Amino acid sequence: MDIANIQAQLDCVYRQTESLCEPLEIEDYCIQPMEDASPPKWHLAHTCWFFETFVLRHADKKRQPHHKDYGFLFNSYYNGIGEHHPRPQRGHLSRPIVSDIYFYRKCIYEDSLNLLNKTEDNDLLSRVILGINHEQQHQELLLTDLKYNLGKNPMRPTYRDVGQSQSSRPICFEFHTIEGGMVKVGADLETDSFCFDNELPTHNVWLESYAIANRLVTNEEYLGFIQDGGYEKPELWLSDGWNERQKRSWVAPEYWYQDEDGYWCEYSLHGSDRVNPYLPVCHVSFYEADAFARWKGARLPTENEWEHAASSMNAESQGHFADNNHFHPVAESKVPFMCGNLWQWTASSYSPYPGYQPLDGTLGEYNGKFMSNQYVLRGGSCATPHSHYRNSYRNFFYPKDRWQFTGIRLASEP
Amino acid sequence: MDIANIQAQLDCVYRQTESLCEPLEIEDYCIQPMEDASPPKWHLAHTCWFFETFVLRHADKKRQPHHKDYGFLFNSYYNGIGEHHPRPQRGHLSRPIVSDIYFYRKCIYEDSLNLLNKTEDNDLLSRVILGINHEQQHQELLLTDLKYNLGKNPMRPTYRDVGQSQSSRPICFEFHTIEGGMVKVGADLETDSFCFDNELPTHNVWLESYAIANRLVTNEEYLGFIQDGGYEKPELWLSDGWNERQKRSWVAPEYWYQDEDGYWCEYSLHGSDRVNPYLPVCHVSFYEADAFARWKGARLPTENEWEHAASSMNAESQGHFADNNHFHPVAESKVPFMCGNLWQWTASSYSPYPGYQPLDGTLGEYNGKFMSNQYVLRGGSCATPHSHYRNSYRNFFYPKDRWQFTGIRLASEP
Amino acid sequence: MDIANIQAQLDCVYRQTESLCEPLEIEDYCIQPMEDASPPKWHLAHTCWFFETFVLRHADKKRQPHHKDYGFLFNSYYNGIGEHHPRPQRGHLSRPIVSDIYFYRKCIYEDSLNLLNKTEDNDLLSRVILGINHEQQHQELLLTDLKYNLGKNPMRPTYRDVGQSQSSRPICFEFHTIEGGMVKVGADLETDSFCFDNELPTHNVWLESYAIANRLVTNEEYLGFIQDGGYEKPELWLSDGWNERQKRSWVAPEYWYQDEDGYWCEYSLHGSDRVNPYLPVCHVSFYEADAFARWKGARLPTENEWEHAASSMNAESQGHFADNNHFHPVAESKVPFMCGNLWQWTASSYSPYPGYQPLDGTLGEYNGKFMSNQYVLRGGSCATPHSHYRNSYRNFFYPKDRWQFTGIRLASEP
Amino acid sequence: MDIANIQAQLDCVYRQTESLCEPLEIEDYCIQPMEDASPPKWHLAHTCWFFETFVLRHADKKRQPHHKDYGFLFNSYYNGIGEHHPRPQRGHLSRPIVSDIYFYRKCIYEDSLNLLNKTEDNDLLSRVILGINHEQQHQELLLTDLKYNLGKNPMRPTYRDVGQSQSSRPICFEFHTIEGGMVKVGADLETDSFCFDNELPTHNVWLESYAIANRLVTNEEYLGFIQDGGYEKPELWLSDGWNERQKRSWVAPEYWYQDEDGYWCEYSLHGSDRVNPYLPVCHVSFYEADAFARWKGARLPTENEWEHAASSMNAESQGHFADNNHFHPVAESKVPFMCGNLWQWTASSYSPYPGYQPLDGTLGEYNGKFMSNQYVLRGGSCATPHSHYRNSYRNFFYPKDRWQFTGIRLASEP
Repeated sequence: MDIANIQAQLDCVYRQTESLCEPLEIEDYCIQPMEDASPPKWHLAHTCWFFETFVLRHADKKRQPHHKDYGFLFNSYYNGIGEHHPRPQRGHLSRPIVSDIYFYRKCIYEDSLNLLNKTEDNDLLSRVILGINHEQQHQELLLTDLKYNLGKNPMRPTYRDVGQSQSSRPICFEFHTIEGGMVKVGADLETDSFCFDNELPTHNVWLESYAIANRLVTNEEYLGFIQDGGYEKPELWLSDGWNERQKRSWVAPEYWYQDEDGYWCEYSLHGSDRVNPYLPVCHVSFYEADAFARWKGARLPTENEWEHAASSMNAESQGHFADNNHFHPVAESKVPFMCGNLWQWTASSYSPYPGYQPLDGTLGEYNGKFMSNQYVLRGGSCATPHSHYRNSYRNFFYPKDRWQFTGIRLASEP
Repeated sequence: MDIANIQAQLDCVYRQTESLCEPLEIEDYCIQPMEDASPPKWHLAHTCWFFETFVLRHADKKRQPHHKDYGFLFNSYYNGIGEHHPRPQRGHLSRPIVSDIYFYRKCIYEDSLNLLNKTEDNDLLSRVILGINHEQQHQELLLTDLKYNLGKNPMRPTYRDVGQSQSSRPICFEFHTIEGGMVKVGADLETDSFCFDNELPTHNVWLESYAIANRLVTNEEYLGFIQDGGYEKPELWLSDGWNERQKRSWVAPEYWYQDEDGYWCEYSLHGSDRVNPYLPVCHVSFYEADAFARWKGARLPTENEWEHAASSMNAESQGHFADNNHFHPVAESKVPFMCGNLWQWTASSYSPYPGYQPLDGTLGEYNGKFMSNQYVLRGGSCATPHSHYRNSYRNFFYPKDRWQFTGIRLASEP
Repeated sequence: MDIANIQAQLDCVYRQTESLCEPLEIEDYCIQPMEDASPPKWHLAHTCWFFETFVLRHADKKRQPHHKDYGFLFNSYYNGIGEHHPRPQRGHLSRPIVSDIYFYRKCIYEDSLNLLNKTEDNDLLSRVILGINHEQQHQELLLTDLKYNLGKNPMRPTYRDVGQSQSSRPICFEFHTIEGGMVKVGADLETDSFCFDNELPTHNVWLESYAIANRLVTNEEYLGFIQDGGYEKPELWLSDGWNERQKRSWVAPEYWYQDEDGYWCEYSLHGSDRVNPYLPVCHVSFYEADAFARWKGARLPTENEWEHAASSMNAESQGHFADNNHFHPVAESKVPFMCGNLWQWTASSYSPYPGYQPLDGTLGEYNGKFMSNQYVLRGGSCATPHSHYRNSYRNFFYPKDRWQFTGIRLASEP
Repeated sequence: MDIANIQAQLDCVYRQTESLCEPLEIEDYCIQPMEDASPPKWHLAHTCWFFETFVLRHADKKRQPHHKDYGFLFNSYYNGIGEHHPRPQRGHLSRPIVSDIYFYRKCIYEDSLNLLNKTEDNDLLSRVILGINHEQQHQELLLTDLKYNLGKNPMRPTYRDVGQSQSSRPICFEFHTIEGGMVKVGADLETDSFCFDNELPTHNVWLESYAIANRLVTNEEYLGFIQDGGYEKPELWLSDGWNERQKRSWVAPEYWYQDEDGYWCEYSLHGSDRVNPYLPVCHVSFYEADAFARWKGARLPTENEWEHAASSMNAESQGHFADNNHFHPVAESKVPFMCGNLWQWTASSYSPYPGYQPLDGTLGEYNGKFMSNQYVLRGGSCATPHSHYRNSYRNFFYPKDRWQFTGIRLASEP
């Protein structure tokens, strides 16, 4: 990849992150209403710290830190770098203030852009590319955390009124049967300009034939599950899922609530509205996705099935991504999207591919150490930058997590 | 009390609360690093809500609320008024933003001042006076919560550089013996223009003779306790205190830490500095005060002993109060202060005086329902407005609490 | 006190403890269904350890422990003696087995009885007397813990069928007005052969006149509170009490439950039965007692008021004590009992009397270190040995505790 | 399978369970020192309840329960059957007493044996076979729970002195390279007389070539990990594993402790002894196994790799199983055991095989609902009945679990 291109990408991602924050009040930058939902301020600083640490200070070992405390405050989890501030306390910090962090970013990104004028070191370039992709990941997290931040406020403020989603009836639900056989799984290093270490190595997998849904499960279908007592029937749930449902008193997806007249409403970054039956159901945990599938007599696809189906459709060229500036799923009323609308829970626990090697050194902590207890999600969402996505992309969250843009695609035996 | 005077007080307290916030960044208004330490924003809004609810909307039953959500958000604990937002989540709210709250205050205080031009209703006047005293209480809480907010940030930012405290050696420690007998305890309605319901009724108490310290315990004396292993000897502690010490790993007062060279330092609203041996020890729990007293072969005074001693000294006319704008204790090097420097833990559990009657109606929730499990503190502190204080004042906190301006005065048998 | 008498008492208390265990199965000795409810086995061993440690090994410093692990396992909380097994894990120990503990007791009590033949050391004698009283306390705890142990088993087994309680209508509820004045509070060393250190020193207290109920609150009266929504009205409760009620979902006293037909039933050591309206209400927390009193427009008596009232009635000569082998309260249908039926929550936090001195040495941990956060109960109960009781007796539990035999006596201004 | 054979097996398993309890004191039957370690009494009753419910009362719908409360008390987790007593409270029940449970067993097993004389219903026969296998599973759990029960007692009592394990040096550690390719995974219905539903369907899997260790990791090797600071280096651990290590303060396997001279000792059912360097390391969590493997530059095998390797060795015909009555691993000094010594953590999350179908009806809850968040263990242990084992056997526990007989077999790329 040529350097000018990398520079352009870096400049673009740097601006885009800040552009996402334009609608925010200073107050919105600071709070953390649950451990997982970091303050916007922290995302701004952490992505910047990533370039400072893994690019600038890696290239120049004598470079002093921008601020003596920022290394401690904005390291997320890299033990190889040093101690870090406890994650649940990110919302306990009023300082540094927002303008200090914007200044921090200005300094670091300018220096990073300048450094690209002066280097041809491939390792360094790949670190910059990793930093760009890292920041794109955090653009999505910034949106999901912000949604929690605003959506859990009893005033339910709007992030940005981004226009009504179209609401025509989705296409008919169907299962497509897909022939099994020996398939390749993992990133394609010939066509993909970048992938994370967890997408490698490309390897063979034997798949039995399977059927996969042509579109995501809709709110209407999910309301059927609710109305049939799906949240009251332990026999539909995994044991751990039922415990979670009991502990957290789940009766509907995250952000759903009943208004005074008993109608189901949903908070989105556009504000609150009646649940639109045509839209894909969103903000469900793996446990809910799994219980819904069981209720339907179906199951979730494995990540290998999903990737195989998506690849055979050339799915990544289309889809409803963050670039649409809509940040909420849309109805699949004409062309169904295999990807883009919502992350799709798979039946696969997140684990290393055969022969997996984490990156060398501290950056090896990026992915590998999280390969337990989480489930793989595939497909990208309405909050994922399109250029960040590919079909081999493996996202991962705990099965109880609901604050990401997560939906359900069913699978089945043929 | 004449109405012009009340108006002047109300105007003054309204401005003073906001004046305390002048050094704050917007970010500082929003966070709540522990359940007890509410965001400054919340204090600003809650004190305002008190006037809106108990004065304006009491006087005019048809008056609409300033905002439909503020009643829920800024009611602290008055069940008689309705549901309220959970206390531990006050720092989860970025909205309403700070400027909205300043506007809320402007509207409500202007209306309250205007109302005073039009009323002679004594009940209403006493509600205004209660509101003024309520806000003065919150001025102190705003400072203590803010100290926690800034002091727990690893960057330890300064609130306001308010000048060095004098640091001459304190006067010699002595016990003064005070003759017992039948004494009057409680507010003196003839001399005090206001008191809380918990200071009444004035009643007789029989006191045995006792001895009380001429000044507060100093940091130097407390360091002696630390160096003698006071935090390692369960025999010095109450059983519940020892459990708390273990659970929270206490080894020194709140805000103390050791620098790289092993010196004890202390955070104050002026910033961080070496512990000054001459100043009174501050930010200790009841359990630590009690353990220190036992180590000294002494005890804490009862609240009756304290009040009797203070009254006999005419102590409230002097002292180091918030009006000094210093917000940190000073050395008692010339004249000792019975009051003003630090709240002083007493040996008395907070309970109703014989014949106690809470205020009528919802305002009865102000004090009475907290009369269990807390200990009485006496004397006022460097964060207490002088005009808010009198010797019969009963402050109360849980024995584990350390974030208030709390110190130790010893007592003993004569 | 003459030594033969002490010997007789020791022999008697030793046998009586074991006699209380006669109805138990081996299995009943071992379990601890909540932290506070120690296994019967533990009580048997701990009371024995008390004599081993504070009498036999105190008298003979070279005496080896009966078993190398018993000191660790059966020390309750005496830090001066050494480390001890964590209280919440007492029910995690199947060994030593029950017969080992009976053998331990046999050895220690025989040696203790023999020692009394050989000593005239007053300190040692007072330690034996303390041990006897200590064991009497544990006889009551053994019964209350056993009640929890059996009563929380869904099979609700009977401890011993000890006959029906009489159930005639209680005497009419009345308040007796008692003249205030200067009164003596505390143990009377001239008439009492023994008291705990917390009952001393005898001291003067000034009491205002007050009114006190002629009998305990009945189940019928308490049902009135329940039916009036007492458990649903926060305005009746202390703030901490309401939190506790919410956290624990209290809707009735401990051991009450509704049968299939909706009738309130109550488990007692006799088994389960419909709630008898005539009996005093039992197994309520301080918070419930306080809320009931507020609902009645009354209050709880202070411990000074209680002691003064009891002393003026010469109350301790009568009452329904453990000696009746009934272990459940009886209706006060003819003569009311000031003491014996149920421990009565007072409004007084447990704190030291003026001039209080704990016992010397490790035995000082017996009482003094618990003087915070608990409330005083007065009067003894149907599970208290009569010879253990006197009117100055100060029992103490946390305000949330319900598994003791606790009831309600109201007081009021005259 | 012929009925006489099933009868013989049932009779044998019934006696064997009780035979395992012979060394127990009554007290040992009752306690539950952690949630996972159910009381022996409960295992005795639950396995019996399984026959009562799924065999006898299934065959005769009018059959009355043996006792009205046992269904509630001894149902483990079958929501389809009804409510059940909470698992963490199994140790809170002193009743029914042990002899009642033996009587319960006598009645139910006699009736079950008799029923076999009268039936040829294949469904019923398969339920009996399932019950036999269920009870064999609980025989192992009874031993592991009992080990926890006794081993966590500070007295560390011996279950049964079952003789010294031989302690000659284990064979040299080697990796065996195994050729990949398309392999069959799952139970072989032609050769196995029984399997659980989770071992089906048999299906194709593509395996890359891999290397697998010839024996289990020894204590000596594991001590190397400890001495190299393995428990202090987060870079060796999965992120969740490191959190667990911190939370639980792990510094060595479960049951290891240092004696006064600093030597590592280990509790086993034979009692306590110095850690034998030649024996396989035992009672490690998945996280520790994974961290050890990373420290060694190796990894854990997948369950497919494990099964393939084991099948190619015909491993199940040998091994150190419960039938040896040793209940502790032995050194692999001559012939290495692929199975029998210790359960071996695999890298595979427990999930359904492609096309998995749970059993019909309530028995479908047996396995399927646990297919999340757990890891598969393979190989059987010294506490597994030999006849219960086959190479396709999938055991599963949470990655933090350490109280099972769990060890480590390494794998690697070839």
